[in-house]
Amino acid sequence: MGEQVDMASEEMLINAAVTSWKIVIGRLDKGIQALGEEQLQRQVAPGKNRLYYLVGHLTAVHDRMFPLLGLGEKLYPQLDEPYVTNPDGALPDPLSADELKKAWSEVNSKLTAAVEALTPREWLQKHTQVSDEDFAKDPSRNRLAVFLSRTNHASFHAGQFVLVK
Amino acid sequence: MGEQVDMASEEMLINAAVTSWKIVIGRLDKGIQALGEEQLQRQVAPGKNRLYYLVGHLTAVHDRMFPLLGLGEKLYPQLDEPYVTNPDGALPDPLSADELKKAWSEVNSKLTAAVEALTPREWLQKHTQVSDEDFAKDPSRNRLAVFLSRTNHASFHAGQFVLVK
Repeated sequence: MGEQVDMASEEMLINAAVTSWKIVIGRLDKGIQALGEEQLQRQVAPGKNRLYYLVGHLTAVHDRMFPLLGLGEKLYPQLDEPYVTNPDGALPDPLSADELKKAWSEVNSKLTAAVEALTPREWLQKHTQVSDEDFAKDPSRNRLAVFLSRTNHASFHAGQFVLVK
Repeated sequence: MGEQVDMASEEMLINAAVTSWKIVIGRLDKGIQALGEEQLQRQVAPGKNRLYYLVGHLTAVHDRMFPLLGLGEKLYPQLDEPYVTNPDGALPDPLSADELKKAWSEVNSKLTAAVEALTPREWLQKHTQVSDEDFAKDPSRNRLAVFLSRTNHASFHAGQFVLVK
């Protein structure tokens, strides 16, 4: 609308999004760190994904956010094939339970630190999977849209985690 | 930081949050509208909530957002007791499947229209469950924080919906 406002409001809006992400990841992390190898092998419902697969899936999807948001390279590219490209059970688990939990923590802590350093302007820049031409037509395809989508994706799987006793 | 920016950036940030909500609600709505009475009576996993309960729960929680966000009164206050205060099975379902699906649609469409009318400044104002004193200490307790939390909550239950064949 052309009205002049100070940067503080933009930072408040971004802060709400980052806080929302941290709440979702923090709750998942609390549940995941408490699980041992045997518990991680349980399925969320009969015939559905194992918790092991879900932890691998969320770790791999969050790891992909580094290149997607232009924040760096993936830390654990070996998780893509077993936990994103393929369904549960198609490939062996490449990491032990302890290694997987460490990967989950490392990816999320580094990713959270990286997004916390973004300015409001950077949040509204395009993500790397959209072309300059397409972004010019639809500027809503920005980093924040990806980040909110991934926060919802983590919540989606968190709802499945809690079904396992 | 005191830097002057135009209002467009704030509106872009808010737009990302509202779009994220609309995507989550739209996917849920597509699934819910396709379900008949019998399918709604299924549980998301053995011994867990029925889909019927989850639709009632999400409708009631979203209905509560009208007073919580200072946007008006609840449309279906009779859903609070069976679907928020009490667990599944404690009370009879007050609405038929068709009535419940209508309530779900009505609450979400009116709520979405109401939040789309909020300005960035209004998004950063306090929600109604926090006192002026507490909000002065912690201005992150604003409308947007509630809205992002409820978007994640809807995603959380959406992850459970998809487990039902």
